[in-house]
Amino acid sequence: MQAAPIETRLIDGKAYARRLTDTVRDGVTALGETHGVVPGLAVVMVGNNPASEVYVRNKIAHTEGVGMRSVAHKLPGSTTEAELLAVIDRLNRDPEVHGILVQLPLPRGIASDRITRAIHPHKDVDGLTPENVGRTTLGQDGLVPCTPLGCLLLLRSELGTLKGLHAVVVGKSNLVGRPMAQLLLQEECTVTVCHVATPDVGSLACQADVLVVATGHKGLVRRDWIKPGATVIDVGITRVTTQEGKSRLMGDVVHEEAMGRAGRLTPVPGGVGPMTIACLLRNTLTAAERSVRGLQPGT
Amino acid sequence: MQAAPIETRLIDGKAYARRLTDTVRDGVTALGETHGVVPGLAVVMVGNNPASEVYVRNKIAHTEGVGMRSVAHKLPGSTTEAELLAVIDRLNRDPEVHGILVQLPLPRGIASDRITRAIHPHKDVDGLTPENVGRTTLGQDGLVPCTPLGCLLLLRSELGTLKGLHAVVVGKSNLVGRPMAQLLLQEECTVTVCHVATPDVGSLACQADVLVVATGHKGLVRRDWIKPGATVIDVGITRVTTQEGKSRLMGDVVHEEAMGRAGRLTPVPGGVGPMTIACLLRNTLTAAERSVRGLQPGT
Repeated sequence: MQAAPIETRLIDGKAYARRLTDTVRDGVTALGETHGVVPGLAVVMVGNNPASEVYVRNKIAHTEGVGMRSVAHKLPGSTTEAELLAVIDRLNRDPEVHGILVQLPLPRGIASDRITRAIHPHKDVDGLTPENVGRTTLGQDGLVPCTPLGCLLLLRSELGTLKGLHAVVVGKSNLVGRPMAQLLLQEECTVTVCHVATPDVGSLACQADVLVVATGHKGLVRRDWIKPGATVIDVGITRVTTQEGKSRLMGDVVHEEAMGRAGRLTPVPGGVGPMTIACLLRNTLTAAERSVRGLQPGT
Repeated sequence: MQAAPIETRLIDGKAYARRLTDTVRDGVTALGETHGVVPGLAVVMVGNNPASEVYVRNKIAHTEGVGMRSVAHKLPGSTTEAELLAVIDRLNRDPEVHGILVQLPLPRGIASDRITRAIHPHKDVDGLTPENVGRTTLGQDGLVPCTPLGCLLLLRSELGTLKGLHAVVVGKSNLVGRPMAQLLLQEECTVTVCHVATPDVGSLACQADVLVVATGHKGLVRRDWIKPGATVIDVGITRVTTQEGKSRLMGDVVHEEAMGRAGRLTPVPGGVGPMTIACLLRNTLTAAERSVRGLQPGT
Protein backbone atom coordinates (compact mmCIF):
# COMPACT_ATOMS: atom_id res chain seq x y z
CA MET A 1 0.00 0.00 0.00
CA GLN A 2 1.31 3.40 -0.92
CA ALA A 3 1.40 5.82 1.99
CA ALA A 4 -0.60 9.00 1.54
CA PRO A 5 1.60 11.80 0.25
CA ILE A 6 2.77 14.18 2.94
CA GLU A 7 2.35 17.88 2.51
CA THR A 8 5.64 19.25 3.78
CA ARG A 9 5.38 22.51 5.65
CA LEU A 10 8.32 24.83 5.03
CA ILE A 11 9.42 26.54 8.22
CA ASP A 12 9.76 30.26 7.54
CA GLY A 13 12.90 31.13 9.50
CA LYS A 14 12.85 34.67 8.18
CA ALA A 15 9.41 35.34 9.65
CA TYR A 16 10.36 33.84 13.02
CA ALA A 17 13.61 35.80 13.03
CA ARG A 18 11.76 39.02 12.25
CA ARG A 19 9.44 38.49 15.21
CA LEU A 20 12.35 37.66 17.51
CA THR A 21 14.24 40.71 16.28
CA ASP A 22 11.20 42.90 16.97
CA THR A 23 11.08 41.57 20.53
CA VAL A 24 14.76 42.32 20.98
CA ARG A 25 14.26 45.86 19.61
CA ASP A 26 11.50 46.43 22.17
CA GLY A 27 13.81 45.10 24.89
CA VAL A 28 16.57 47.47 23.81
CA THR A 29 14.16 50.41 23.94
CA ALA A 30 12.92 49.38 27.37
CA LEU A 31 16.45 49.04 28.71
CA GLY A 32 17.29 52.50 27.45
CA GLU A 33 14.20 53.99 29.08
CA THR A 34 14.56 52.24 32.42
CA HIS A 35 18.33 52.28 32.86
CA GLY A 36 19.68 54.60 30.18
CA VAL A 37 21.80 51.76 28.88
CA VAL A 38 22.47 50.87 25.25
CA PRO A 39 23.55 47.22 24.79
CA GLY A 40 26.99 47.10 23.20
CA LEU A 41 28.44 44.34 21.06
CA ALA A 42 32.14 44.18 20.24
CA VAL A 43 33.01 42.14 17.17
CA VAL A 44 36.66 41.21 16.92
CA MET A 45 38.16 40.11 13.63
CA VAL A 46 41.77 39.23 12.82
CA GLY A 47 43.06 39.36 9.25
CA ASN A 48 40.88 39.84 6.23
CA ASN A 49 39.10 36.63 5.40
CA PRO A 50 36.51 37.81 2.83
CA ALA A 51 33.74 35.53 4.17
CA SER A 52 34.37 36.76 7.71
CA GLU A 53 34.19 40.37 6.52
CA VAL A 54 30.74 39.73 5.10
CA TYR A 55 29.58 38.05 8.32
CA VAL A 56 30.96 40.83 10.49
CA ARG A 57 29.36 43.58 8.38
CA ASN A 58 26.10 41.68 8.51
CA LYS A 59 26.20 41.26 12.28
CA ILE A 60 26.99 44.92 12.80
CA ALA A 61 24.16 46.05 10.54
CA HIS A 62 21.70 43.88 12.45
CA THR A 63 22.83 44.99 15.90
CA GLU A 64 22.57 48.61 14.90
CA GLY A 65 19.19 47.89 13.35
CA VAL A 66 17.75 47.08 16.77
CA GLY A 67 19.29 50.14 18.39
CA MET A 68 22.36 48.53 19.91
CA ARG A 69 25.86 49.93 19.82
CA SER A 70 28.23 47.88 17.77
CA VAL A 71 31.99 48.20 17.55
CA ALA A 72 34.14 46.29 15.09
CA HIS A 73 37.75 45.68 16.07
CA LYS A 74 39.60 44.82 12.90
CA LEU A 75 43.09 43.65 13.75
CA PRO A 76 45.82 42.95 11.18
CA GLY A 77 46.60 39.36 10.19
CA SER A 78 49.97 39.71 11.94
CA THR A 79 48.32 40.12 15.37
CA THR A 80 49.83 37.81 17.99
CA GLU A 81 47.88 35.76 20.50
CA ALA A 82 49.15 37.99 23.31
CA GLU A 83 47.94 41.10 21.50
CA LEU A 84 44.55 39.57 20.87
CA LEU A 85 44.30 38.51 24.52
CA ALA A 86 45.05 42.10 25.52
CA VAL A 87 42.18 43.34 23.35
CA ILE A 88 39.82 40.78 24.90
CA ASP A 89 40.95 41.82 28.36
CA ARG A 90 40.21 45.46 27.61
CA LEU A 91 36.75 44.60 26.26
CA ASN A 92 36.07 42.40 29.30
CA ARG A 93 36.61 45.46 31.50
CA ASP A 94 34.76 47.96 29.30
CA PRO A 95 31.37 48.67 30.94
CA GLU A 96 29.86 49.77 27.61
CA VAL A 97 30.56 46.38 26.05
CA HIS A 98 28.02 43.71 27.02
CA GLY A 99 28.82 41.14 24.40
CA ILE A 100 32.10 40.07 22.81
CA LEU A 101 32.22 38.04 19.65
CA VAL A 102 35.47 36.82 18.12
CA GLN A 103 34.95 35.99 14.48
CA LEU A 104 36.38 32.59 13.59
CA PRO A 105 38.51 31.28 11.98
CA LEU A 106 41.55 32.96 13.53
CA PRO A 107 44.92 32.97 11.77
CA ARG A 108 47.30 30.08 12.41
CA GLY A 109 49.40 30.56 15.49
CA ILE A 110 46.47 31.78 17.55
CA ALA A 111 44.82 29.05 19.62
CA SER A 112 41.13 29.83 19.30
CA ASP A 113 40.20 27.85 22.42
CA ARG A 114 42.55 30.00 24.51
CA ILE A 115 40.98 33.12 23.03
CA THR A 116 37.46 31.86 23.64
CA ARG A 117 38.28 31.00 27.24
CA ALA A 118 39.60 34.52 27.81
CA ILE A 119 36.19 36.07 27.14
CA HIS A 120 34.32 36.82 30.34
CA PRO A 121 31.44 34.29 30.56
CA HIS A 122 28.96 37.13 31.15
CA LYS A 123 29.94 38.70 27.81
CA ASP A 124 30.30 35.45 25.90
CA VAL A 125 27.38 35.94 23.47
CA ASP A 126 28.58 33.01 21.37
CA GLY A 127 28.16 30.71 24.38
CA LEU A 128 31.50 28.99 23.80
CA THR A 129 33.34 29.45 27.11
CA PRO A 130 33.55 26.32 29.29
CA GLU A 131 31.43 28.08 31.92
CA ASN A 132 28.55 28.68 29.49
CA VAL A 133 28.91 25.28 27.83
CA GLY A 134 28.68 23.73 31.30
CA ARG A 135 25.63 25.81 32.17
CA THR A 136 23.92 24.73 28.97
CA THR A 137 24.68 21.10 29.81
CA LEU A 138 23.46 21.51 33.39
CA GLY A 139 20.34 23.38 32.29
CA GLN A 140 21.38 26.48 34.24
CA ASP A 141 20.99 30.07 33.08
CA GLY A 142 23.81 31.08 30.83
CA LEU A 143 24.44 32.09 27.26
CA VAL A 144 23.66 29.45 24.65
CA PRO A 145 25.34 29.30 21.20
CA CYS A 146 23.21 31.18 18.67
CA THR A 147 22.64 28.56 15.99
CA PRO A 148 21.38 25.72 18.22
CA LEU A 149 19.35 28.26 20.19
CA GLY A 150 17.76 29.39 16.94
CA CYS A 151 16.97 25.79 15.97
CA LEU A 152 15.43 25.15 19.38
CA LEU A 153 13.20 28.23 19.15
CA LEU A 154 12.01 27.13 15.70
CA LEU A 155 11.28 23.62 16.98
CA ARG A 156 9.40 24.88 20.02
CA SER A 157 7.34 27.27 17.92
CA GLU A 158 6.48 24.58 15.40
CA LEU A 159 5.94 21.58 17.66
CA GLY A 160 5.14 22.91 21.10
CA THR A 161 6.54 20.43 23.57
CA LEU A 162 9.39 18.24 22.37
CA LYS A 163 9.16 15.87 25.33
CA GLY A 164 9.54 12.21 24.42
CA LEU A 165 10.45 12.83 20.78
CA HIS A 166 13.48 11.10 19.36
CA ALA A 167 15.86 13.75 18.09
CA VAL A 168 18.81 12.75 15.95
CA VAL A 169 21.58 15.33 15.58
CA VAL A 170 24.03 14.77 12.75
CA GLY A 171 27.34 16.51 13.48
CA LYS A 172 29.11 16.99 16.80
CA SER A 173 30.79 20.37 16.51
CA ASN A 174 31.18 22.55 19.59
CA LEU A 175 29.34 25.30 17.75
CA VAL A 176 26.21 23.38 16.75
CA GLY A 177 25.95 19.61 17.22
CA ARG A 178 26.95 19.26 20.87
CA PRO A 179 25.04 22.21 22.31
CA MET A 180 22.03 21.26 20.14
CA ALA A 181 22.07 17.79 21.70
CA GLN A 182 22.22 19.30 25.19
CA LEU A 183 19.31 21.64 24.51
CA LEU A 184 17.20 18.81 23.13
CA LEU A 185 18.00 16.74 26.19
CA GLN A 186 16.81 19.63 28.37
CA GLU A 187 13.55 19.46 26.44
CA GLU A 188 13.34 15.77 27.39
CA CYS A 189 13.91 14.45 23.93
CA THR A 190 15.63 11.13 23.49
CA VAL A 191 18.79 12.28 21.74
CA THR A 192 21.14 10.52 19.35
CA VAL A 193 24.30 12.20 18.08
CA CYS A 194 25.78 10.86 14.84
CA HIS A 195 28.93 12.09 13.16
CA VAL A 196 31.68 11.26 10.75
CA ALA A 197 32.64 8.07 12.64
CA THR A 198 29.08 6.71 12.63
CA PRO A 199 29.04 3.70 10.29
CA ASP A 200 25.45 4.09 9.05
CA VAL A 201 23.97 7.49 9.80
CA GLY A 202 20.92 6.84 7.65
CA SER A 203 19.75 3.91 9.77
CA LEU A 204 19.63 6.21 12.80
CA ALA A 205 18.43 9.35 11.01
CA CYS A 206 15.38 7.51 9.69
CA GLN A 207 14.28 6.81 13.29
CA ALA A 208 14.16 10.52 14.13
CA ASP A 209 11.01 12.47 14.91
CA VAL A 210 13.27 15.53 14.82
CA LEU A 211 16.33 15.47 12.57
CA VAL A 212 18.89 18.25 12.93
CA VAL A 213 21.64 18.14 10.35
CA ALA A 214 24.77 20.26 10.76
CA THR A 215 27.61 18.78 8.77
CA GLY A 216 28.34 21.20 5.94
CA HIS A 217 28.13 18.29 3.45
CA LYS A 218 25.64 19.48 0.89
CA GLY A 219 23.06 16.95 -0.16
CA LEU A 220 24.01 14.42 2.53
CA VAL A 221 20.44 13.70 3.60
CA ARG A 222 18.38 11.81 1.03
CA ARG A 223 14.74 10.80 1.08
CA ASP A 224 15.24 7.45 2.81
CA TRP A 225 17.08 9.07 5.74
CA ILE A 226 13.89 10.87 6.68
CA LYS A 227 11.13 9.23 8.68
CA PRO A 228 7.81 10.12 7.02
CA GLY A 229 6.39 13.17 8.76
CA ALA A 230 9.58 14.04 10.65
CA THR A 231 10.62 17.61 11.35
CA VAL A 232 13.91 18.31 9.58
CA ILE A 233 16.18 21.21 10.54
CA ASP A 234 18.87 21.84 7.97
CA VAL A 235 21.74 23.82 9.48
CA GLY A 236 24.26 23.27 6.71
CA ILE A 237 25.05 26.07 4.30
CA THR A 238 27.35 25.50 1.35
CA ARG A 239 27.85 28.03 -1.43
CA VAL A 240 27.98 26.41 -4.84
CA THR A 241 28.33 27.74 -8.36
CA THR A 242 25.71 26.43 -10.76
CA GLN A 243 26.40 25.39 -14.34
CA GLU A 244 25.09 28.77 -15.43
CA GLY A 245 27.80 30.36 -13.28
CA LYS A 246 25.39 31.58 -10.65
CA SER A 247 26.14 31.41 -6.93
CA ARG A 248 23.66 29.49 -4.84
CA LEU A 249 23.35 28.27 -1.24
CA MET A 250 22.67 24.61 -0.56
CA GLY A 251 21.84 22.79 2.63
CA ASP A 252 22.82 19.37 3.96
CA VAL A 253 19.40 18.05 2.94
CA VAL A 254 18.40 17.33 -0.67
CA HIS A 255 15.49 19.72 -0.64
CA GLU A 256 13.37 18.19 -3.39
CA GLU A 257 13.69 14.70 -1.86
CA ALA A 258 12.67 15.94 1.57
CA MET A 259 9.58 17.63 0.13
CA GLY A 260 6.66 15.23 0.36
CA ARG A 261 8.50 13.12 2.93
CA ALA A 262 9.29 15.40 5.89
CA GLY A 263 6.42 16.85 7.87
CA ARG A 264 8.26 20.14 8.30
CA LEU A 265 11.50 21.39 6.81
CA THR A 266 13.69 24.46 7.10
CA PRO A 267 14.73 25.74 3.68
CA VAL A 268 18.25 26.89 2.83
CA PRO A 269 18.49 29.84 2.68
CA GLY A 270 15.72 31.34 4.81
CA GLY A 271 15.53 28.70 7.53
CA VAL A 272 18.07 28.49 10.34
CA GLY A 273 20.35 31.25 9.04
CA PRO A 274 18.16 34.23 9.93
CA MET A 275 17.50 32.78 13.39
CA THR A 276 21.22 32.58 14.17
CA ILE A 277 21.70 36.31 13.82
CA ALA A 278 18.46 37.07 15.67
CA CYS A 279 19.71 34.90 18.54
CA LEU A 280 22.98 36.81 18.63
CA LEU A 281 20.93 39.97 19.17
CA ARG A 282 18.90 38.22 21.83
CA ASN A 283 22.03 37.01 23.64
CA THR A 284 23.52 40.49 23.57
CA LEU A 285 20.35 41.95 25.04
CA THR A 286 20.27 39.20 27.69
CA ALA A 287 23.87 39.97 28.66
CA ALA A 288 23.11 43.71 28.88
CA GLU A 289 19.95 43.17 30.92
CA ARG A 290 21.78 40.93 33.36
CA SER A 291 24.65 43.36 33.72
CA VAL A 292 22.49 46.38 34.51
CA ARG A 293 20.32 44.45 36.93
CA GLY A 294 23.36 42.94 38.61
CA LEU A 295 21.49 39.79 37.78
CA GLN A 296 24.33 37.57 36.75
CA PRO A 297 23.32 33.98 36.09
CA GLY A 298 23.46 31.68 39.03
CA THR A 299 23.95 34.42 41.57
CA MET B 1 18.42 -21.14 13.63
CA GLN B 2 19.42 -20.75 17.25
CA ALA B 3 22.33 -18.37 17.72
CA ALA B 4 25.39 -19.87 19.37
CA PRO B 5 25.34 -19.18 23.11
CA ILE B 6 27.52 -16.29 24.15
CA GLU B 7 30.02 -16.67 26.92
CA THR B 8 29.60 -13.46 28.87
CA ARG B 9 32.79 -12.04 30.30
CA LEU B 10 32.32 -10.43 33.70
CA ILE B 11 34.31 -7.23 33.99
CA ASP B 12 36.25 -7.30 37.22
CA GLY B 13 35.91 -3.72 38.42
CA LYS B 14 37.67 -4.53 41.67
CA ALA B 15 40.80 -5.67 39.87
CA TYR B 16 40.83 -2.60 37.60
CA ALA B 17 40.24 -0.33 40.58
CA ARG B 18 43.08 -1.97 42.48
CA ARG B 19 45.47 -1.32 39.62
CA LEU B 20 44.31 2.28 39.27
CA THR B 21 44.64 2.79 43.02
CA ASP B 22 48.19 1.41 42.89
CA THR B 23 49.05 3.91 40.16
CA VAL B 24 47.62 6.73 42.23
CA ARG B 25 49.59 5.59 45.29
CA ASP B 26 52.78 5.70 43.21
CA GLY B 27 51.83 9.18 42.03
CA VAL B 28 51.28 10.35 45.60
CA THR B 29 54.70 9.01 46.61
CA ALA B 30 56.34 10.69 43.64
CA LEU B 31 54.66 14.02 44.39
CA GLY B 32 55.88 13.81 47.98
CA GLU B 33 59.44 13.09 46.87
CA THR B 34 59.64 15.72 44.17
CA HIS B 35 57.66 18.54 45.75
CA GLY B 36 57.17 17.59 49.40
CA VAL B 37 53.43 17.84 48.87
CA VAL B 38 50.75 15.52 50.22
CA PRO B 39 47.49 15.68 48.22
CA GLY B 40 44.65 16.76 50.49
CA LEU B 41 40.97 15.96 50.10
CA ALA B 42 38.31 17.78 52.11
CA VAL B 43 35.02 15.93 52.44
CA VAL B 44 32.14 18.12 53.57
CA MET B 45 29.00 16.59 54.99
CA VAL B 46 25.92 18.32 56.39
CA GLY B 47 23.59 16.50 58.78
CA ASN B 48 23.77 12.82 59.56
CA ASN B 49 22.28 10.85 56.71
CA PRO B 50 23.38 7.30 57.58
CA ALA B 51 24.14 6.33 53.97
CA SER B 52 26.23 9.47 53.52
CA GLU B 53 28.17 8.67 56.69
CA VAL B 54 29.11 5.28 55.26
CA TYR B 55 30.19 6.82 51.95
CA VAL B 56 32.23 9.53 53.63
CA ARG B 57 33.98 7.06 55.96
CA ASN B 58 34.71 4.87 52.95
CA LYS B 59 36.14 7.74 50.91
CA ILE B 60 38.34 8.86 53.76
CA ALA B 61 39.68 5.34 54.36
CA HIS B 62 40.57 5.03 50.67
CA THR B 63 42.27 8.43 50.41
CA GLU B 64 44.36 7.71 53.47
CA GLY B 65 45.13 4.26 52.07
CA VAL B 66 47.04 5.84 49.18
CA GLY B 67 48.91 8.25 51.42
CA MET B 68 46.76 11.32 50.95
CA ARG B 69 45.61 13.65 53.67
CA SER B 70 41.88 13.57 54.21
CA VAL B 71 39.80 15.89 56.32
CA ALA B 72 36.12 15.35 57.04
CA HIS B 73 34.06 18.45 57.81
CA LYS B 74 30.93 17.25 59.53
CA LEU B 75 28.50 20.13 59.88
CA PRO B 76 25.25 19.98 61.86
CA GLY B 77 21.96 19.55 59.99
CA SER B 78 21.03 23.09 61.01
CA THR B 79 23.87 24.60 58.93
CA THR B 80 22.69 27.43 56.69
CA GLU B 81 23.63 27.91 53.06
CA ALA B 82 25.70 30.96 53.99
CA GLU B 83 27.61 29.00 56.61
CA LEU B 84 28.29 26.20 54.18
CA LEU B 85 29.45 28.70 51.54
CA ALA B 86 31.84 30.15 54.11
CA VAL B 87 33.32 26.69 54.72
CA ILE B 88 33.75 26.16 50.96
CA ASP B 89 35.39 29.56 50.65
CA ARG B 90 37.89 28.71 53.38
CA LEU B 91 38.70 25.37 51.74
CA ASN B 92 39.07 27.07 48.34
CA ARG B 93 41.81 29.24 49.86
CA ASP B 94 43.52 26.51 51.89
CA PRO B 95 46.73 25.53 50.04
CA GLU B 96 46.80 22.13 51.74
CA VAL B 97 43.42 21.22 50.27
CA HIS B 98 43.59 20.12 46.63
CA GLY B 99 40.19 18.52 46.33
CA ILE B 100 36.81 19.45 47.81
CA LEU B 101 33.91 17.05 47.83
CA VAL B 102 30.49 17.97 49.16
CA GLN B 103 28.55 14.84 49.99
CA LEU B 104 25.05 14.93 48.55
CA PRO B 105 22.18 15.08 49.32
CA LEU B 106 22.23 18.34 51.28
CA PRO B 107 19.43 19.27 53.67
CA ARG B 108 16.42 21.13 52.31
CA GLY B 109 16.96 24.85 52.23
CA ILE B 110 20.45 24.54 50.80
CA ALA B 111 20.58 24.85 47.01
CA SER B 112 23.10 22.21 46.02
CA ASP B 113 23.82 23.81 42.64
CA ARG B 114 24.83 27.06 44.36
CA ILE B 115 27.12 25.09 46.66
CA THR B 116 28.64 23.14 43.78
CA ARG B 117 29.27 26.34 41.83
CA ALA B 118 31.09 27.83 44.81
CA ILE B 119 33.80 25.17 44.70
CA HIS B 120 36.89 26.36 42.87
CA PRO B 121 37.01 24.47 39.53
CA HIS B 122 40.60 23.43 40.20
CA LYS B 123 39.52 21.67 43.42
CA ASP B 124 36.26 20.30 42.06
CA VAL B 125 37.16 16.58 42.19
CA ASP B 126 33.53 15.63 41.56
CA GLY B 127 33.67 17.48 38.22
CA LEU B 128 30.31 19.16 38.78
CA THR B 129 31.07 22.88 38.42
CA PRO B 130 29.91 24.47 35.14
CA GLU B 131 33.56 25.13 34.22
CA ASN B 132 34.49 21.44 34.48
CA VAL B 133 31.25 20.26 32.89
CA GLY B 134 31.99 22.61 29.99
CA ARG B 135 35.56 21.35 29.69
CA THR B 136 34.33 17.76 29.61
CA THR B 137 31.88 18.70 26.85
CA LEU B 138 34.54 20.57 24.90
CA GLY B 139 37.10 17.81 25.35
CA GLN B 140 39.45 20.13 27.22
CA ASP B 141 41.52 19.23 30.28
CA GLY B 142 39.47 19.45 33.42
CA LEU B 143 38.10 17.25 36.17
CA VAL B 144 35.59 14.63 35.06
CA PRO B 145 32.90 13.16 37.35
CA CYS B 146 34.21 9.97 38.98
CA THR B 147 31.54 7.45 38.00
CA PRO B 148 31.45 8.11 34.24
CA LEU B 149 35.24 8.39 34.24
CA GLY B 150 35.39 4.97 35.88
CA CYS B 151 33.01 3.53 33.28
CA LEU B 152 35.09 5.00 30.48
CA LEU B 153 38.32 3.54 31.85
CA LEU B 154 36.68 0.11 32.09
CA LEU B 155 35.39 0.39 28.54
CA ARG B 156 38.73 1.48 27.15
CA SER B 157 40.55 -1.33 28.98
CA GLU B 158 38.08 -3.93 27.76
CA LEU B 159 37.46 -2.77 24.20
CA GLY B 160 40.43 -0.66 23.21
CA THR B 161 39.11 1.98 20.82
CA LEU B 162 35.43 2.84 21.08
CA LYS B 163 35.38 4.75 17.80
CA GLY B 164 32.31 4.13 15.68
CA LEU B 165 30.49 2.04 18.29
CA HIS B 166 26.90 2.91 19.09
CA ALA B 167 26.67 3.68 22.78
CA VAL B 168 23.28 3.98 24.42
CA VAL B 169 23.19 5.69 27.81
CA VAL B 170 20.06 5.15 29.88
CA GLY B 171 19.64 7.98 32.38
CA LYS B 172 20.46 11.68 32.01
CA SER B 173 21.59 12.76 35.46
CA ASN B 174 24.25 15.44 35.80
CA LEU B 175 26.30 13.01 37.86
CA VAL B 176 26.38 10.08 35.45
CA GLY B 177 24.26 10.04 32.28
CA ARG B 178 25.13 13.40 30.77
CA PRO B 179 28.88 13.39 31.41
CA MET B 180 28.99 9.73 30.30
CA ALA B 181 27.40 10.71 26.99
CA GLN B 182 29.95 13.50 26.55
CA LEU B 183 32.88 11.22 27.25
CA LEU B 184 31.60 8.62 24.80
CA LEU B 185 31.20 11.32 22.18
CA GLN B 186 34.84 12.33 22.76
CA GLU B 187 35.72 8.70 22.02
CA GLU B 188 33.86 9.08 18.72
CA CYS B 189 31.01 6.79 19.63
CA THR B 190 27.59 7.40 18.15
CA VAL B 191 25.69 8.25 21.32
CA THR B 192 22.03 7.92 22.24
CA VAL B 193 20.70 9.16 25.56
CA CYS B 194 17.42 7.63 26.80
CA HIS B 195 15.62 8.55 29.98
CA VAL B 196 12.33 8.52 31.78
CA ALA B 197 10.54 10.40 28.96
CA THR B 198 11.71 7.94 26.29
CA PRO B 199 8.64 5.99 25.12
CA ASP B 200 10.42 2.71 24.31
CA VAL B 201 13.90 2.49 25.82
CA GLY B 202 14.24 -1.18 24.92
CA SER B 203 13.97 -0.54 21.19
CA LEU B 204 16.98 1.76 21.41
CA ALA B 205 18.93 -0.17 24.04
CA CYS B 206 18.89 -3.28 21.87
CA GLN B 207 20.75 -1.35 19.13
CA ALA B 208 23.67 -0.61 21.44
CA ASP B 209 27.17 -1.99 21.06
CA VAL B 210 27.85 -0.37 24.44
CA LEU B 211 24.96 -0.04 26.87
CA VAL B 212 25.47 2.09 29.99
CA VAL B 213 22.58 1.98 32.42
CA ALA B 214 22.35 4.48 35.26
CA THR B 215 18.77 4.78 36.43
CA GLY B 216 18.63 3.28 39.91
CA HIS B 217 15.66 1.12 38.84
CA LYS B 218 16.70 -2.38 39.75
CA GLY B 219 16.03 -5.01 37.15
CA LEU B 220 15.07 -2.50 34.44
CA VAL B 221 17.18 -4.12 31.72
CA ARG B 222 15.90 -7.51 30.59
CA ARG B 223 17.41 -9.95 28.11
CA ASP B 224 15.70 -8.52 25.03
CA TRP B 225 17.08 -5.03 25.70
CA ILE B 226 20.58 -6.32 25.11
CA LYS B 227 22.05 -6.77 21.64
CA PRO B 228 23.79 -10.13 21.55
CA GLY B 229 27.47 -9.62 22.33
CA ALA B 230 27.07 -6.04 23.58
CA THR B 231 29.14 -4.60 26.40
CA VAL B 232 26.85 -3.72 29.30
CA ILE B 233 27.91 -1.32 32.05
CA ASP B 234 25.54 -1.43 35.00
CA VAL B 235 25.89 1.71 37.11
CA GLY B 236 22.74 1.27 39.19
CA ILE B 237 23.02 0.16 42.78
CA THR B 238 19.90 -0.54 44.82
CA ARG B 239 19.98 -2.13 48.25
CA VAL B 240 17.22 -4.70 48.72
CA THR B 241 16.26 -7.02 51.54
CA THR B 242 15.78 -10.62 50.46
CA GLN B 243 13.00 -12.88 51.72
CA GLU B 244 15.50 -14.36 54.14
CA GLY B 245 15.97 -10.89 55.58
CA LYS B 246 19.44 -10.46 54.11
CA SER B 247 20.63 -7.20 52.59
CA ARG B 248 21.80 -7.41 49.00
CA LEU B 249 22.88 -4.98 46.25
CA MET B 250 21.15 -5.13 42.89
CA GLY B 251 21.93 -3.40 39.62
CA ASP B 252 19.71 -1.95 36.90
CA VAL B 253 20.36 -5.05 34.80
CA VAL B 254 18.78 -8.44 35.50
CA HIS B 255 22.09 -10.21 35.92
CA GLU B 256 21.01 -13.76 35.09
CA GLU B 257 19.23 -12.60 31.92
CA ALA B 258 22.27 -10.66 30.73
CA MET B 259 24.51 -13.68 31.24
CA GLY B 260 24.74 -15.59 27.98
CA ARG B 261 23.47 -12.56 26.05
CA ALA B 262 25.90 -9.70 26.71
CA GLY B 263 29.47 -10.04 25.51
CA ARG B 264 30.78 -8.29 28.62
CA LEU B 265 29.02 -7.20 31.77
CA THR B 266 29.90 -5.35 34.95
CA PRO B 267 28.55 -7.16 38.01
CA VAL B 268 26.86 -5.38 40.92
CA PRO B 269 28.60 -5.18 43.31
CA GLY B 270 32.19 -5.32 42.11
CA GLY B 271 31.82 -3.56 38.77
CA VAL B 272 31.52 0.20 38.47
CA GLY B 273 31.41 0.90 42.22
CA PRO B 274 35.08 0.27 43.00
CA MET B 275 36.12 2.34 39.97
CA THR B 276 34.19 5.38 41.21
CA ILE B 277 36.21 5.65 44.37
CA ALA B 278 39.48 4.92 42.55
CA CYS B 279 38.66 7.77 40.15
CA LEU B 280 38.05 10.11 43.08
CA LEU B 281 41.59 9.34 44.23
CA ARG B 282 42.87 9.89 40.71
CA ASN B 283 41.08 13.24 40.41
CA THR B 284 42.49 14.37 43.76
CA LEU B 285 45.99 13.44 42.66
CA THR B 286 45.46 15.22 39.32
CA ALA B 287 44.31 18.37 41.12
CA ALA B 288 47.32 18.25 43.45
CA GLU B 289 49.78 17.65 40.61
CA ARG B 290 48.37 20.57 38.65
CA SER B 291 48.46 22.87 41.64
CA VAL B 292 52.11 22.21 42.50
CA ARG B 293 53.20 22.47 38.90
CA GLY B 294 51.22 25.64 38.43
CA LEU B 295 49.84 23.61 35.57
CA GLN B 296 46.23 24.58 35.74
CA PRO B 297 44.16 23.23 32.89
CA GLY B 298 43.95 25.37 29.82
CA THR B 299 46.68 27.76 30.90
